[in-house]
Amino acid sequence: MLQRRLLHSSRAVLGKTLTALTRVKHPEFKRNPAFAKIEEKDLSFFKSVLAPQNIIHDENPEDPSSSMMPYNTDWFNLYRGTSSLCLFPTSTEQVSQILKYCNQNQLAVVPQGGATGVSGGCNPVFDEIIVNTSKMNKIRHFDAVSGVAVVDCGVVLEGLDQYLEPKGYTVPLDLGAKGSCQIGGNVSTNAGGLRLIKFGNLHGNVLGLEVVLPDGTVLENLSTLRKDNSGYDLKQLFIGSEGTLGLITGISLLTPRRPKAVNVAMVALDSYEAVQEAFVMAKEDLSEILSAFEFWDHDSVGIVKQEMMQDTNYPIEGKHAFYALLETQGSRQEHDQEKLDDYLGRLLEKGVAVDGVMAQDAKQVNALWSWREKIPESISKSGTAMTYDVAMEVPLLYKLVEDAKAHFTQKNLLGPGKLYSNLLGFGHVGDGNLHIMANLDGFDLKGQDDMDEFIFDWTMRHKGSITAEHGVGVSKINYMTRAKTDVQLKLMKTLKKAIDPNGIMNPYKVIPEDK
Amino acid sequence: MLQRRLLHSSRAVLGKTLTALTRVKHPEFKRNPAFAKIEEKDLSFFKSVLAPQNIIHDENPEDPSSSMMPYNTDWFNLYRGTSSLCLFPTSTEQVSQILKYCNQNQLAVVPQGGATGVSGGCNPVFDEIIVNTSKMNKIRHFDAVSGVAVVDCGVVLEGLDQYLEPKGYTVPLDLGAKGSCQIGGNVSTNAGGLRLIKFGNLHGNVLGLEVVLPDGTVLENLSTLRKDNSGYDLKQLFIGSEGTLGLITGISLLTPRRPKAVNVAMVALDSYEAVQEAFVMAKEDLSEILSAFEFWDHDSVGIVKQEMMQDTNYPIEGKHAFYALLETQGSRQEHDQEKLDDYLGRLLEKGVAVDGVMAQDAKQVNALWSWREKIPESISKSGTAMTYDVAMEVPLLYKLVEDAKAHFTQKNLLGPGKLYSNLLGFGHVGDGNLHIMANLDGFDLKGQDDMDEFIFDWTMRHKGSITAEHGVGVSKINYMTRAKTDVQLKLMKTLKKAIDPNGIMNPYKVIPEDK
Repeated sequence: MLQRRLLHSSRAVLGKTLTALTRVKHPEFKRNPAFAKIEEKDLSFFKSVLAPQNIIHDENPEDPSSSMMPYNTDWFNLYRGTSSLCLFPTSTEQVSQILKYCNQNQLAVVPQGGATGVSGGCNPVFDEIIVNTSKMNKIRHFDAVSGVAVVDCGVVLEGLDQYLEPKGYTVPLDLGAKGSCQIGGNVSTNAGGLRLIKFGNLHGNVLGLEVVLPDGTVLENLSTLRKDNSGYDLKQLFIGSEGTLGLITGISLLTPRRPKAVNVAMVALDSYEAVQEAFVMAKEDLSEILSAFEFWDHDSVGIVKQEMMQDTNYPIEGKHAFYALLETQGSRQEHDQEKLDDYLGRLLEKGVAVDGVMAQDAKQVNALWSWREKIPESISKSGTAMTYDVAMEVPLLYKLVEDAKAHFTQKNLLGPGKLYSNLLGFGHVGDGNLHIMANLDGFDLKGQDDMDEFIFDWTMRHKGSITAEHGVGVSKINYMTRAKTDVQLKLMKTLKKAIDPNGIMNPYKVIPEDK
Repeated sequence: MLQRRLLHSSRAVLGKTLTALTRVKHPEFKRNPAFAKIEEKDLSFFKSVLAPQNIIHDENPEDPSSSMMPYNTDWFNLYRGTSSLCLFPTSTEQVSQILKYCNQNQLAVVPQGGATGVSGGCNPVFDEIIVNTSKMNKIRHFDAVSGVAVVDCGVVLEGLDQYLEPKGYTVPLDLGAKGSCQIGGNVSTNAGGLRLIKFGNLHGNVLGLEVVLPDGTVLENLSTLRKDNSGYDLKQLFIGSEGTLGLITGISLLTPRRPKAVNVAMVALDSYEAVQEAFVMAKEDLSEILSAFEFWDHDSVGIVKQEMMQDTNYPIEGKHAFYALLETQGSRQEHDQEKLDDYLGRLLEKGVAVDGVMAQDAKQVNALWSWREKIPESISKSGTAMTYDVAMEVPLLYKLVEDAKAHFTQKNLLGPGKLYSNLLGFGHVGDGNLHIMANLDGFDLKGQDDMDEFIFDWTMRHKGSITAEHGVGVSKINYMTRAKTDVQLKLMKTLKKAIDPNGIMNPYKVIPEDK
């Protein structure tokens, strides 16, 4: 099976200059004075709950060599908090004790899983206590008839997939960070990823949750039933609310049968219109077996080649504006192959695609995927990375990249050695989800802000979402008042206040403060 | 395409004796004295908002000939309220004005769609004002690239399906009541139905909602995006909360491609173990094209034959304990046919199934489906119907029917002419969802209560859900304190109070009163 992962063994900063503190980059954030600061008595309490090896405490978290650094920073080196305390509970009961104490003592908390998020949601902004779920990583139960898995929040996504493989099942989501991301984080952020087109989102695939509420109460809702309409579907509240309403400790997940056949093809296309046409034709011809339809532009190939694949030939010769990767998953190889052959034949015959290759074995499947999956990491290796994740009508998706390029080229800000470089677009056509990335010269804050403003403003003007799957976190908090209506924001605040009246759970994220 | 519907042109009572008033059957319900009674000034206000033909008012709603009767009663003739007023708004703005007024004047409201629910959720218990959505039935928008439909709440499910057919799309849910049920009601009750196994539930398929909140505020959340993680997924709150948190006026729905090939087979099996084995094999062999796996017992055939299909031969000869109906939906007929042939061959060869037939054309598809779909209506025609809808582990499903039969036979209460007759089981194996129905002699309240207690208690002891898809409504409200934990109930109440502080939306339903 595919073994893809973000290769970030030294998780934090890869020898690059540390990014500025989030509170410096975002001076508009003010530490909420209602929150207490950690005192000796608090440490004593946590030591009474957790074993010594499950507490990291460092009074100087800003020191580059601080043991807190891996937990205060994110993988893309875009956010940095100054928490002095990271707790590693090993049970739901411990999480409950921690939150109950924090709630009673007005100590702010940031839940953290694999810390592969790119919106700053899982890192502290100030001195929030980090509750890291890495040590809650048991697979509690799996039923091979129904395909329902019940797992701890800290189980790594790829680990669960490996567990399911010999049982003939697979996970219903897949993403580049699968080797590090944890299921609790996936659910908290409603992670989408590469196969949403086939399996749908986590609101449909999560059957139940165990959640520790902000006051320490444990909400036991770990249903393994596929259908249950007995009362409000409470779990939905916690899917995608980025840890602001509680800390998810257990997940009951519906897992699909592992496909008996996986086929992957890559095609070259000369226009974005052709990409769309290829997608519509894929929905017609491949329908129930289409499991991914990804695309990227030519510049994306360039950066991957330059940063990570110098010694590998790109599988399609010549220069083409766009490439699409199609994957099918089905139960019978010869049927799927026939459908895919016919589809590719039709694409080339009609002139929609100009060239294409099909993987002949698992190694080639991996090789084709790697050109898509290494794009984010390549940009990150190339310098300070800016990453965007927007959703909108499919026909508009790439227009945003073109307009951004034209806008910043005209201002003479885009190109090698300039403020912005390597501006490129790729993503999940089938979900109407575009990722735009670019390198930023150093940590130019105004440069980041200007790019944010251009991309978010363009997206909102075109009725899109400023975050399709990455979530709000810190990165889009300042845009929420423009992205949502007053009624939406008011209802979010009503829910937050009802469930977390002291506001201790992941403050400064998702819901903008009243001005 | 399949044209199946509940044939209830005269919607209410089919000439049968009217059921007792809900408040008589459930003397434990007390009208909440905080609610106002309708006065002349209220009628004046509603007349200022709605055209005269969109208001039904009758001071004597208990009179069997009352014009309010069709709205006070349910199709199964199990619930009867005494509302004197039914309003038919034609726009979201009118709904907003109505709710705002009701909230300010403490008038209780029951939202009502196609009124095909079987839990009493859409009928008043006392004198709640009925807000019926039948006259809000426009298809607002459909995008043929993405397959996203934006519709009014009152659009009939089958009507939308017919609209989508020439465009190559279909609705992602199907149920017996499709000819009458409305999409707003489907979403409010998180309707499941026959093809959930393929398309998943509405929490995954609804992309956005427009909801009038209890105070009349309109929550505009009609996103057509497949992915949007910008803040809490507010729409989820209203899916399945049975109109207790607001009134859904608009729905943005992801619709799948209409299948190019539909195949249906019916097989006979001699034990419930064989049903399960056939299901597991279907998941293996048919995987991505399996769109329904229904089963029923032999008694179900008997009642359908007796009440509705006297002149039709059952398609499989001999007497068998169980029958299963399998449907495939796919994009290529010859592939699907080959998979299904191989599957059926394997079933017979291994002795899992003892006989089977395959539909050769659309007419036969309909004919096979009708034996499954006419079960509820047949029971209803045969007398007072009791209907249950539970979910649990698949291996346990039919054990409940067997235990119920044994229990009531031993008490000499089950059989022709006795308190209970025609006790039978059928349902959606793939979803772990069993329907149990039986006839009750007259309207014996204790008889209903005793059957409720047996079935719900058995289900809860086996960690099942007392309502897989029908919802709580009135019918299971007295069991909610046993079915849910205190923490779950408390959180439900917190949400209800936060969003509907005056409690005007569909009172007496879903959330039990504090004792």
